[in-house]
This record gives sequence, structure tokens and C-alpha cells, in this order.
Amino acid sequence: MSGKVKVGVAGYGVIGTRLAGGVARQEDMELIGVADVAPTLAVRALHERGMPYPLFAAVPGSEDAITGAGIPVSGSFEDLLGEVDVMLDAAPGGIGAKNKERYVARGVKAVFQGGEAGEVADVFFHGYANYEKAVGKDYLKLTSCNTTGLIRAVHAVDELVGVEKVTITIIRRVADPGDTHRGLTNVLMVEAIPNHQAVDLMHIMPHVQATGILVHTPVTHGHIITLVVTPKKNVDKNAVLEAFRAHPRVRVVSIDDGFDSNASLFQYARYLESPRADMYEIGVWEEMIGFNGDDLVFAINIPQEAVTIPETIDAIRAAVPMQKERDEAVALTNRYLGMS
Amino acid sequence: MSGKVKVGVAGYGVIGTRLAGGVARQEDMELIGVADVAPTLAVRALHERGMPYPLFAAVPGSEDAITGAGIPVSGSFEDLLGEVDVMLDAAPGGIGAKNKERYVARGVKAVFQGGEAGEVADVFFHGYANYEKAVGKDYLKLTSCNTTGLIRAVHAVDELVGVEKVTITIIRRVADPGDTHRGLTNVLMVEAIPNHQAVDLMHIMPHVQATGILVHTPVTHGHIITLVVTPKKNVDKNAVLEAFRAHPRVRVVSIDDGFDSNASLFQYARYLESPRADMYEIGVWEEMIGFNGDDLVFAINIPQEAVTIPETIDAIRAAVPMQKERDEAVALTNRYLGMS
Amino acid sequence: MSGKVKVGVAGYGVIGTRLAGGVARQEDMELIGVADVAPTLAVRALHERGMPYPLFAAVPGSEDAITGAGIPVSGSFEDLLGEVDVMLDAAPGGIGAKNKERYVARGVKAVFQGGEAGEVADVFFHGYANYEKAVGKDYLKLTSCNTTGLIRAVHAVDELVGVEKVTITIIRRVADPGDTHRGLTNVLMVEAIPNHQAVDLMHIMPHVQATGILVHTPVTHGHIITLVVTPKKNVDKNAVLEAFRAHPRVRVVSIDDGFDSNASLFQYARYLESPRADMYEIGVWEEMIGFNGDDLVFAINIPQEAVTIPETIDAIRAAVPMQKERDEAVALTNRYLGMS
Amino acid sequence: MSGKVKVGVAGYGVIGTRLAGGVARQEDMELIGVADVAPTLAVRALHERGMPYPLFAAVPGSEDAITGAGIPVSGSFEDLLGEVDVMLDAAPGGIGAKNKERYVARGVKAVFQGGEAGEVADVFFHGYANYEKAVGKDYLKLTSCNTTGLIRAVHAVDELVGVEKVTITIIRRVADPGDTHRGLTNVLMVEAIPNHQAVDLMHIMPHVQATGILVHTPVTHGHIITLVVTPKKNVDKNAVLEAFRAHPRVRVVSIDDGFDSNASLFQYARYLESPRADMYEIGVWEEMIGFNGDDLVFAINIPQEAVTIPETIDAIRAAVPMQKERDEAVALTNRYLGMS
Repeated sequence: MSGKVKVGVAGYGVIGTRLAGGVARQEDMELIGVADVAPTLAVRALHERGMPYPLFAAVPGSEDAITGAGIPVSGSFEDLLGEVDVMLDAAPGGIGAKNKERYVARGVKAVFQGGEAGEVADVFFHGYANYEKAVGKDYLKLTSCNTTGLIRAVHAVDELVGVEKVTITIIRRVADPGDTHRGLTNVLMVEAIPNHQAVDLMHIMPHVQATGILVHTPVTHGHIITLVVTPKKNVDKNAVLEAFRAHPRVRVVSIDDGFDSNASLFQYARYLESPRADMYEIGVWEEMIGFNGDDLVFAINIPQEAVTIPETIDAIRAAVPMQKERDEAVALTNRYLGMS
Repeated sequence: MSGKVKVGVAGYGVIGTRLAGGVARQEDMELIGVADVAPTLAVRALHERGMPYPLFAAVPGSEDAITGAGIPVSGSFEDLLGEVDVMLDAAPGGIGAKNKERYVARGVKAVFQGGEAGEVADVFFHGYANYEKAVGKDYLKLTSCNTTGLIRAVHAVDELVGVEKVTITIIRRVADPGDTHRGLTNVLMVEAIPNHQAVDLMHIMPHVQATGILVHTPVTHGHIITLVVTPKKNVDKNAVLEAFRAHPRVRVVSIDDGFDSNASLFQYARYLESPRADMYEIGVWEEMIGFNGDDLVFAINIPQEAVTIPETIDAIRAAVPMQKERDEAVALTNRYLGMS
Repeated sequence: MSGKVKVGVAGYGVIGTRLAGGVARQEDMELIGVADVAPTLAVRALHERGMPYPLFAAVPGSEDAITGAGIPVSGSFEDLLGEVDVMLDAAPGGIGAKNKERYVARGVKAVFQGGEAGEVADVFFHGYANYEKAVGKDYLKLTSCNTTGLIRAVHAVDELVGVEKVTITIIRRVADPGDTHRGLTNVLMVEAIPNHQAVDLMHIMPHVQATGILVHTPVTHGHIITLVVTPKKNVDKNAVLEAFRAHPRVRVVSIDDGFDSNASLFQYARYLESPRADMYEIGVWEEMIGFNGDDLVFAINIPQEAVTIPETIDAIRAAVPMQKERDEAVALTNRYLGMS
Repeated sequence: MSGKVKVGVAGYGVIGTRLAGGVARQEDMELIGVADVAPTLAVRALHERGMPYPLFAAVPGSEDAITGAGIPVSGSFEDLLGEVDVMLDAAPGGIGAKNKERYVARGVKAVFQGGEAGEVADVFFHGYANYEKAVGKDYLKLTSCNTTGLIRAVHAVDELVGVEKVTITIIRRVADPGDTHRGLTNVLMVEAIPNHQAVDLMHIMPHVQATGILVHTPVTHGHIITLVVTPKKNVDKNAVLEAFRAHPRVRVVSIDDGFDSNASLFQYARYLESPRADMYEIGVWEEMIGFNGDDLVFAINIPQEAVTIPETIDAIRAAVPMQKERDEAVALTNRYLGMS
């Protein structure tokens, strides 16, 4: 195809803001605009920044609310759909399914986030683990933030020595910073086994047997997942470390260097002056890799706000398709996002 | 031996208050008194309750500070030692080792808590897992709160089908309620693998291979541990549930019944009108027991403040010795503590 | 009237459990029973405690759910109403208004909690500040937990020197321990001025001018309120301290003694072995009383779960009426609750 | 003087990183470099960013630790001092006093942060409230983060109508994000009246009578202070709002617009893509401004990490001196920092 692929973003919230930022960095894509329904904090900040990209009114009537706050609107959702090749749908769970009707009607491809129901999509997608399945498909759904990061790690071990089974404990952040609509206070809340992340992992990597427990914790700066992996072949710590270090979407860190918590990675992203203190990579702690007999045991950090951005951009590459081969696609995504 | 075994408690803090309460309920023991160095909140409350048992000044000079707060002191630490058969030492870590010199000098047996260095004791003790090793010994050291609860659970599975290895994730409460000397705020702090609890478990149960990861979380009402257990024989969920239900020191609870967090067990203890909202039992969630292939996966709740009390009382029974057989000893401890 | 006043409790939750406990301690009252709709943790604990008082099914159909959990039910809500003189309604906000229809139909007096709408009651009630207004009235509504404690403190200063105006900052605990249905994580959430507590204070004490700001904080063990009080006459710290020390429902504490937080009072209640770790008194910190010119500045602690119990029991005394004079009524409530 | 003023930063931590960023934006200043003692996360991130400014070894021996982590060092602390006109000292409290000896020896002026003892400086400084006192002085000390923001607000009201007295409640964040060395968990910790911020305010604005209470809360994204201000003349809400809106270092926000917490301002700074999610302005909530009689009541938000940067840069302007008049100085600081 000639020219840049034109992309729009529906829902300019926690994920949508990051998707817009990620697409804007892809030299072979053009961010046409973002759509939302109200003058949220994110929309107000877009305005204060001088509208680096246009805003569209996501539903009829929302234009008034937004312009009433002094923020210019460049058109309707239909106007946006008229200009794009692919929509990234980051609307609240359930809205995406409704939006899909409009995408179908306008012949626009779309990539949905993990909060949407599975049936919305032709392919349940992960950039590294099943890119080829999605090539040329119209509607893709990303795995959730935890599942995306989890599969990155398990897939890396699988490519190294093969994975037979994995049991995970998800120590989940319960809200995003500033969230006043949900939260926990001094509580570790539990859920029944298995968690959906283990089930989703088996959907994407059907040759792996997985289960796990999830515990919600009162923090906001990233999930931690511990993994007990039974590999198909023996492996040692150095080989695992090397594989993780070679992975552009994995950041190996050390407790000794000061990375002593989930929030240390958030702080590091702030010191990097990364926009919004985002981090695309999952973290792996060097001192937390060990073995129990043949089982490999380690822990990863999931920066929930930005971790799915690379795989979502991979999804655009697959759906259009811009690249038919995974390696070529993820390499471009990584390069433009500055991960190498 | 004739008459009740006379017990004293050194250090009337988080653990010491519970030890005093637990000993006072043992019909074959007599609580001679408790010792502390200052008019702490616990000491002030003892006074407001009318001094149900006497208070001794733990170090020379501390009598003035305590009586200066209007609280009567019944004598010195040496006075207390002169009246007891066994001391339960719950002084801050490191003090117990110094106290031991006085115990040795006075020919008093002693049971130390998990915070003390291992060399202070002849036996590293767990009531269910190695009672016999401690029979007649002079100086015993309990496992820590997490290790005590962990071994209870692993030992129960071990008695059922044998345990080959276990990998744990400890989701640790970082402070006790009201603690202003330590704490974490919006952070999941990590530690290098393996955690000491896994190492300690292997010390007590040397035929089990263990490792694990520990994450500190900003909560106060109980630790949660997830376990991946490789049993020696196949087992199903019903058998596991039955074994846990039959265990007097394990409380099987259900998320569906409202036990949806660590704090739900604390709240339940409050509704039970248990003194200080204490709970002696570890919790096991019915809906969180599952399998990955042959591996048994489940989660336990550790009520950190009171969980070691039953095993500490077992230790008195072993050291004196009051009972030479574990089953007889733990049955008495359980009966007097109301666990059946 | 002859014999004990017969009291029932509707809603056996955070407040209802404490109301039942408080009524059970009044020697001139008889707790007939409590009503709830489901086998909650509180109801399960009542059962594990051996049903010290009977449980009634609060709505048709709820009997099945409760007995299905193995917990005996002594009858319907109508059965309970048939046996009582006064109902204490601690059902969730809004349910009390519906329950009132049944109270009216059965000629039963009732006392509602602060969560209910004001129109449900004839008198908006505070035991110390407007007892006389409620004597012989049928339907009373308590002030909320913060307002109840706030009025206690302001009323005490008002009796001492008169209060012209008061400006408060409420540093509010956002949830109760174990609450998984609401919470905040790493957020101080604000509300528009004035808070309802200041407005309610003016309703009960119309000669005082009041306003205030409320900030929700991610903690569970008690609210803290700071007060800036403009008195009608000059007063010094000693006089204020003396007045608070003489007040049976105020506990003066000292940071130096270890009361360095809201949670220290909760911990102290645990060490007192108070049922459920309840505390009826508000706390006042000795070192936090100061002046800015003539304005008196201080801070109080509100133990949200039990603080309204004494005033609710006062309300029974007023409504029946059992005592026509405030001083006689509150003295009896205090004596039976052990506050002197 | 001709040319740009040359500035160095000692201590590249929470404050030092922001000072470096702020100085780098001043077109009439040159950031010569920063000094630290170890390869902290901030130092590692500086390296990952490509060393936009040089790093010096703050103490003899620290060079090895830093270069050992692969990070280049441009010289010693003495080397840095040899190149600068003014040092901004953001070393941990107490170190600044030791550093001062070196500043004196080298004839370098210095500005210390609020954590340093008062005697280190000739002037206890606030850019708006006492600029003139510091013109041409050698050693200045900034007020702490809370005091800096507090004085901004009180000084604005003072310029409007005069302030007679102010009583504050500081609802303090207890740690910075990612801090594992201090924290509180489920506790509101109190301190004796008056807090040092009120005392410091009276030092800088001696005609104002001030006191206040401080409560530590388990959050990380900004302090909230409530103020009860007795003005010298009557004032209405519109006039106050107008004064705050006109102040370049105050950001008036609305709960209705979504600014419903301290963390909402942090999130907004993230959406603004401000480096490190920093915010220089204090926040004032429109809906939280009210009156109690003549007293003005309102609340401000203190973004603790960056709030002192503008006033610290003002301090450079005063010390050199670059501008002799406050209005000229603060206008330049504001313009270069993008606050208008």
C-alpha cells in the first residue's frame, strides 16, 4: 500500500491517551484524531497542550459538552470514521461492541482492548504469540494488560526451551492513580481460581497448561505477577536472563540498583521524562529468578497503563496488513516506540 | 509433675499480649506475670482492665517509668524468673538472646519467637511438624508467623499424600494496625528469591523442596500465601478440603459466604468478639483450591498477630515436658484455646 | 412504666451489631432480637457464638437464605415487631423509611441512624445537645457518626464558655475494615464546602455558626476532625482539658503516651479486650489543643463504628420516655456502657 | 553582570532533578551540572537519557560507584564549584550545612532547601513574600514545600485585603511515589500543635498570626491544606477567586471538571506531558472556597515534588542579584517555566 495508514482512537482515557501517543510515534502511520464524549481531564489537558491532534465528538450531543468547556471539536464520530483505515477502540467495556456496528457499516477495521467481550473480534490477539493469525483480519481484540505482559514473558521462555505449564499469582493493582471510582483500602481482596489471565493465556498459547490465583492490592503503580513455569527442557538462570535481556519489550532490572518495588519502575519512567511517566516494557527482577527443581520461578512487573500499546500497534500492522511477518512488524513497532 | 506449669512472658507487645492471653486459657498452666520496659499502650490497657495478671519491670530502671504512669509493678525480671518454670520470650529481636543468659543462670526453660536468631535455641520448633524433637529440651525457637501458618498447611497435605516440593508467593502485610514506625504507601516492595520462609520450611521439613517469592503490600490485617504444591500421590480437591476441615488450626472459608479478603477474617474475629479480634487459625479459601496437572494450588491467610500462639503453647508442653506425644499435646492446646 | 423496655434491632451490620451489644448491657432494657436479610459474616459469627440473642428474618424470603446456611431463625420481622417497644433501625440508607411504615402500623417507636433521610423522624437527635426535644416522641433520627462526635465536643465547649462559631476540617476514613465495596487507593478525595456535618451541627445547635471542609482519606480506623472554635468568652487550655476530662464520652489521650494516630485508639480498644475492638468515646489529644488569638483549636478522633451507640441508647430513653431529664438519662446510658 | 548565571545542583534526588529541569529552562541561566554520590535511579535515568547535562561526583570516592555502573562522571564537586556562580543545594538534610563550608571557601553563593537547618542561611526566603530581603545575599534557605505553597496562598489574600490570622490543617502526604524508606499504612498520624509550617509562615510574614495542626496520611500525590483566614477587610468569593486566577503560581480548578482529589492534579500533569508529571502551581478548588462569618475558608493542593522550584529560581535571581525588584524577577521565572 502507498502512504501512511490512517488511524483513529475511540475513547481518550487511560488507554486511549497512550494509544494516541504511540500511534503518533509510528512513522508509517498517521493519527487522524481521537474521539470522546466529555471534557474529561485528559481532554482538557489535550486542549491546554494546544490540540496536537484533533478531537471528535464520540456520540451525538457530546459536542456541546466539550465545546461548552471551551474546547474545539473537529467533527462527529462519523466524520472521524470517514477519514481512517483503522480504529483503535479504547471505549469503556461494552461500548466497543456498539461501536463495532458503525465500523462494519463504514468498512473500517478495528482493534479492541481487553475489556471488550471476546465475540467482538475475529482474533484474540498478541503481537508476539499469534501475529500470523491476525494478518488481514478485520476485527482484533487485544489481551488485557496483565495477560499481554504475562504472555510476553511466557512466550519468551517458550521460544527458549518450551513451556509445559505455568502457575501464576497475580498481585494486582486495584486502580489507576487518581481513580476515585474504585479502590480498596487496607484490604487484599481474593478471587476464585483460575484467574481469567491464565485462561486467556491458554487461548493464545493452547499448548501451555495454565492456572493461577489473583489478589487485588491497594496500590496503583503496576501489577506484579509471580510465575512457576515447568519448562520442557532444563534451563539455567543465565540463559533465561539472556533471553529476557534480548527481548525489546522486557526490561531486566536489579533490586540492588534501586528497583525494589513496582513503583520504582514508575519513578524511573518519570526520571526518564517519558510522556505521562509511561513504560511499555514489562519488568523482570534479576534477583527474583530462581528454580525449584526443574521449575523456573520469577516475577514480572506490569505497567498497566501503557503495556498493551506496542501489541495494539502490532495489531494495526497485522490487520491492514502492513507486514505479513511478525518479526518485521514487531521490529518496526519497537523501533518507533524507542524500544531496542 | 504435680500442679500447674508456671509461665511468664517477657515483652508485652503484639505477640506478648497474645501469649499471655493464650497461656491464661490453659487449664494446666498458670500465668505468673508479664514483663515490659515501659508504659506502652498494651501496658496501659492492662492497667485500665484492672491488672488481671501482674506486671514486672523487664530491666532495671524501667520500674520508674511504669509506676510514673500510675501503673503498679509487682517486681523485677529476676523476681519473675524466680517464680516460673518456663519463660515465653517475645522481646524485640536480639533482646531474647541477652535474656537467655538470665534464663540459663536461673535454670529456667524458654521459648523464643521467630524474630530471634536461630542459635538462641536447641530446636527450631513447630508444634505439628517436629514436636518430638523438642521433648525435654531447654530452649526452643518458634518459626515466624508466616512460616508457622505455611508449615501447618504444607504439613497437612504432607500427612495426606506426601509433599515433594512447594513454591510459594507471600503477599505480606507490611505492618500491624496502628504501627507508625514502619509502613509502605502505594508500593509493592519486592525481595530476592528465595524468601526465608521457604528456607525455614525446609529446615523443619527437610524432605520437602521449597522456594518462594515475597512481596510486601501496604495492608495490616493478615498475610496471604499462594502455594504450588507437587504432591507425591494424586489427590483431588475433596480430599484436600476434608483434610483442611479436619484440622483444628485451619479454618476453611468461602468467598461466597463473604470471606472475600484477608480483612474479612479479621472482621469475622471482631464479630466473634474474640479478645483483641484475634484468630488462631489460618484461613483456606474453598474456591481458591485448584490444580495445574498434578500440582495442587491454593491460598492461605495468616493472621499475623495470633497465629503462632498455639504452636508456642505446644512448645511449653514439649519443653517441660508436659506431654511426650504430639497428638496429646496439640489436642490439649487446641481444646483450651477453643479450636476444635 | 413497669419492667424493662423491649428493644429490637433492624439491620445487623456495622452499626446494628454494636447497637445490639450496647442495648444488651443496659440493665433497664431487654434485647428481644435482631433482624437481617442474609447470612452475612456478622450473622454467621452470631451463630458461631451460640446465638446469644435471637435472629429474625427481616424480609419475607430471607428466612430461607439464612436457614440454608445452617443458622436458626426465630421468626419474621412482624414477629419481632410484635414483641418490642422500640426498634433501632440500622438498615441501609433508604430501607429505614420503608420500615417506618411497618413501625407506624404496629405502633412501635423507632430510632433511625444518620444515613436515613431527615423526614423519617420527628426529631433530629443528639443525646447531650437536644435530649429534651425528643422526650415522648415516636420517631427519632440520630446524627451521623462524625456529627455525633463533633457535637459532643462542641457542646462541651459550649457548656463551658459558649460557642459563637466553628470551622471544621474532616479527615474522613473512607471505608470500614474489610470493606470491599468501597475504598480509595492513594487518593485524598475532596468535596465542596460546606460539609453536611457542619450543616447538621447548626440544625442541632442553631445558635452556632458552622462550616467546614471534608477530605476522604484511604484509612479505616477512625475519622479525625480539626476544629477552629470562636468561643463567646476567653478560655485557657486547662479549663478546656478539664471539661473534656470530666466528660464521660470523651477520652483525653496524649501523643507522648503512644496515642500518635487514629489507629492507636483502635489498637488500645483491642488491648482493652473491648468487644469487636469498639470504642464509644471520641478521643481528644492533649498536645493538639492550642489557640490562635481567642480561637480555640483542637482535634478529635471519631471511632466510626461505635461512636453513635451511646446517643442511640439515649434516644430510647427519650422516646419511651424512660427519663425526662437529660442528665439522668445519659448518666444511666454511660454507667451501663462502662463510661465514667 | 554579563552573560548567563552559572548554576550547579548538589543532590540529584526528588528535588534536585526538578531544580536541574527548572534551571535548564531559564534562558538567562546556564545549568553547569549536577552532583550526586551514587548511581541512584535518577542518575541511571539521566544516563539512559544520554546525559543532557554533566554529572559530578559529590564526595571523594563516589566517582567509582557511579562509573562502576557505566555512567560517566565529569569531575569532582570541587570541579563543579569552580565553574558556577550559584549552587542549589538539595542534598539530604544536614549535608547542606557541611557543603556550605565548601561554598564559603570557594566564594560560591548557595540556595538551600527547607530540610536544612535555619542557621545555614542569611535569609529564610520566599520568592513572593520577602524577595527584597534576599537581594545580594550569599546564602538563602527556601521554605519547605508545604510552607512555600501555603505562603503563596496567604500572601495572595494578604495583598488583596490583608490577613490578620490564619489557622491551617495540613493533610500531609507521607512519602513520595516509590519511597520504600518511609511510609504509613492505614494510619492517620498526628503531631502536636503548632506545626512548623505555621511557625515558618509567621517568620516570613511576621504581621500574620498563625497556628495549625498536621496529620500524616498514607498517600503520595500531594498535600492538602485547609485554611481559616481572618482577613483585615471584608471580601467576597469572587474577589478571592479573581486574585487566585490572576496568580501565575496558582491553578484554580473545579471539582465539577474532574479535579476531585490531590491525585487528579498529578494525573492532569501526566496528561499535560509535563516532565516527570511535575506541577509547579498550587491548586485551589473553586467549590471549596467559603466563609464562616468574616473568616475565609478554602483548601489548597501542594504538589510536593516541584512546588518549590519557582521560588528557588527566584532565590538565584535575588542572591546574584539578577533583578532587584520582586515583580521583575518572578515574572521572568514564571515566563521561563511556562506559568502565565
